[in-house]
Amino acid sequence: MPVLSQQVAVPRDGEKTALVIDILTQAFGERCVRSEAVRRQHGHTTTWLENQPPDAVVFAETTQEVAEIVRTCAVHKVPVIPFGSGSSLEGHLNAPEGGISIDVSAMNKILAVNPEDLDCKVQAGVTRKQLNTHLRDTGLFFPIDPGADASLGGMASTRASGTNAVRYGTMRDVVLGLTVVLPSGDVVHTGGRARKSSAGYDLTRLMIGAEGTLGVITELQLRLHGIPEAVSGGVCPFPTIESACNAVITTIQCGIPVARIELLDALQIKACNTYSKLALPETPTLFLEFHGTEASVREQSDLFNDIAGDLGGGPFTWETQPEERNKLWTARHDAYWAAFTLRPGAKGIATDVCVPISRLAECVEATRQDIENERFIAPIVGHVGDGNFHVLVLVDENDQAEVAQAEAFVERLNWRAIDMEGTCTGEHGVGQGKMKYMAREHGGALSVMRAVKQAIDPDNILNPGKIVPMP
Amino acid sequence: MPVLSQQVAVPRDGEKTALVIDILTQAFGERCVRSEAVRRQHGHTTTWLENQPPDAVVFAETTQEVAEIVRTCAVHKVPVIPFGSGSSLEGHLNAPEGGISIDVSAMNKILAVNPEDLDCKVQAGVTRKQLNTHLRDTGLFFPIDPGADASLGGMASTRASGTNAVRYGTMRDVVLGLTVVLPSGDVVHTGGRARKSSAGYDLTRLMIGAEGTLGVITELQLRLHGIPEAVSGGVCPFPTIESACNAVITTIQCGIPVARIELLDALQIKACNTYSKLALPETPTLFLEFHGTEASVREQSDLFNDIAGDLGGGPFTWETQPEERNKLWTARHDAYWAAFTLRPGAKGIATDVCVPISRLAECVEATRQDIENERFIAPIVGHVGDGNFHVLVLVDENDQAEVAQAEAFVERLNWRAIDMEGTCTGEHGVGQGKMKYMAREHGGALSVMRAVKQAIDPDNILNPGKIVPMP
Repeated sequence: MPVLSQQVAVPRDGEKTALVIDILTQAFGERCVRSEAVRRQHGHTTTWLENQPPDAVVFAETTQEVAEIVRTCAVHKVPVIPFGSGSSLEGHLNAPEGGISIDVSAMNKILAVNPEDLDCKVQAGVTRKQLNTHLRDTGLFFPIDPGADASLGGMASTRASGTNAVRYGTMRDVVLGLTVVLPSGDVVHTGGRARKSSAGYDLTRLMIGAEGTLGVITELQLRLHGIPEAVSGGVCPFPTIESACNAVITTIQCGIPVARIELLDALQIKACNTYSKLALPETPTLFLEFHGTEASVREQSDLFNDIAGDLGGGPFTWETQPEERNKLWTARHDAYWAAFTLRPGAKGIATDVCVPISRLAECVEATRQDIENERFIAPIVGHVGDGNFHVLVLVDENDQAEVAQAEAFVERLNWRAIDMEGTCTGEHGVGQGKMKYMAREHGGALSVMRAVKQAIDPDNILNPGKIVPMP
Repeated sequence: MPVLSQQVAVPRDGEKTALVIDILTQAFGERCVRSEAVRRQHGHTTTWLENQPPDAVVFAETTQEVAEIVRTCAVHKVPVIPFGSGSSLEGHLNAPEGGISIDVSAMNKILAVNPEDLDCKVQAGVTRKQLNTHLRDTGLFFPIDPGADASLGGMASTRASGTNAVRYGTMRDVVLGLTVVLPSGDVVHTGGRARKSSAGYDLTRLMIGAEGTLGVITELQLRLHGIPEAVSGGVCPFPTIESACNAVITTIQCGIPVARIELLDALQIKACNTYSKLALPETPTLFLEFHGTEASVREQSDLFNDIAGDLGGGPFTWETQPEERNKLWTARHDAYWAAFTLRPGAKGIATDVCVPISRLAECVEATRQDIENERFIAPIVGHVGDGNFHVLVLVDENDQAEVAQAEAFVERLNWRAIDMEGTCTGEHGVGQGKMKYMAREHGGALSVMRAVKQAIDPDNILNPGKIVPMP
């Protein structure tokens, strides 16, 4: 398989790594695994980047075990890569300098649920679906939904968000506190259970989005929300991407507390029609969901309907029945898989950017034009309430020229977003894939990131080769 | 005036400070001020801590001027203390090691308002009231309201919040990006204009709440909200603090998007009746405000009324007319001044803590009991939707024993909140006054804060003696 431009994996120190693996094997027995298959699966599962497997994988079950592994690695300066569910998209889990992958998927205990405080405490390996299944009888739910059934530790580490973020925020907003293993192996607690605090530096937010480069998250205190009394949802076609984006802007400006507002371009609708057996008009379309009381979701739907009509969109068809609504949202969630029907056998190169919402139509249109110029098959899907959108470029992975062409397209898209006062990633994170954009996006602030990294992890053992280029 | 236990101000290096003041006087002329009155006014305006004035105050007008001042101080390792409006409460502005206060109050330009994106860019000296006056015709507003007409740079630096936080969040949530002068004098930009980003460490959140110890904030990109179509508000008496707190918990659990929900204890109501010429029953009382459409605020009010009735509270009287509503909220905002009617001539010692909402009634009751045992006059006011409350202890400042007794009471209150999984400050910040609680609240995480401080400000020139005790 051809790979996009990538550094080659060079283990940092083979002898020390072997020593660390010996120590960990004595301590963890069969939970320290060196098989090729397991190592490759922990390099990554979903990205288009070259697989750079770790030297061994240790399956940890407690915070103390994670601390023991990190401490062992720290003594010998061997890299540590935290692993949750493996669903990240930018090479976050690769081991370019070798080292030990700490798999926390067995740390899947829900430690406490406090309905009065609308919060809970979980181990880092708990997935969002597991948590919501557990919460079902409490009347509460955890709102962040990035599509994949990711681990909550991983979601915090990449600052994940998804379809609900326009209403409920991102992982930045819902984490009250963390248990973190530092690069020394010391265990610290950040934040707490109070809803807000002004007591010192916001280490919780520093760890969120740090992609395991500053500490290994082992437990999370999370905010929950009450399950809304009523939910309505629907789809609304628009003649152009611009009119759809304008409907989004007006909806947000009017203060309609929309829970989800998602754009699928005409090509993505075509794919969804095929894959999910729908018969939607193949034109830019918004998928919406409203949460509230019966009266309030009706009022929100009516208000949106007026907005869409004024902008040439519609008809807006909406459903309060769970079955019909779920069918639509299942189609939305399956959009990634549906896209492959457009070019069977192709490999997908996924990327995401985020821009101020006033620039969204312009950015999506310019990207659409770029796709047409390059003759790519590349549907666009967006969490447009946030100005965030994804492109999935379908390529023949055996055609080096086409892959290089796709890579250049992705680069142009990222520069375009940054030039529009946006960001090279709204929710996927930096990993390896987006490091090259960091200097342009952050300028001198990148040196502050580097100083923080060096202060907390002076030997650069935690997930090296990610986020911040180190000297 | 007797002072609470405080370190004595010891200028770091008199000769270097004199040299820096000479350089700054040449550069800034009359905007570099050394008068005793101005220096004392910049030590602080509102706290009960000893005044420790800076050696000089420089009135800066641009980011570049701030950078020049910081760079000059950095060369000679002279402390720098950023000053906005002087309304902080925990000695944030004191200069225990002397140095230069940078007054940014003249940096009061609103640089951009983007209605489509619901955001704006302001200089750090713009106050929240100035911003809302400027926004009046746009249909937008800035929601964070700490009571005082604080500067937005200062509000970011203390991670301020206030009455609206239960609905609109704190400064943590509404800042999209910052312009920051680093301790080197370099200017960096954190964050951006995208609604969300996963592109690297969250330096914006690191600077928010850092109280000027990591950088001087000179510009802020802020999220705005649409002015709600309808607002209703009212008051609801309860027989006990516990029943009032339970009404708050139920309201939040039911997902009622209450915009403000404030508790005033019986003593505070008595003070407000006197000061604001009201005739409220002198019992624990909730002040509420709902934002939404006409239908939705009516529905929210009705739902709350049912909840209050079930818990023995009420009658809930509410107003949609601005005049009546404003009269109530003016009384709420004047609660601080009203309190002094309870003991004319007394000095107020203000403190705030925040606990998980399930512990709120217990924490407030225990504090009430403590107040009674000590025979203090000390009303309690709380942003109870967040679990945050304030106590104002009215003391005779000439009675050393009483001041010491009040200080011990404040300490017990802070330990109590921390022991209930809360925090020693929900919104006032650490400054000097709360440093002694940091180790107990944060444990080993305090060493991470110290490492971050040392990495970014190795010479400890930015607002030294605040937040993190340095070696």
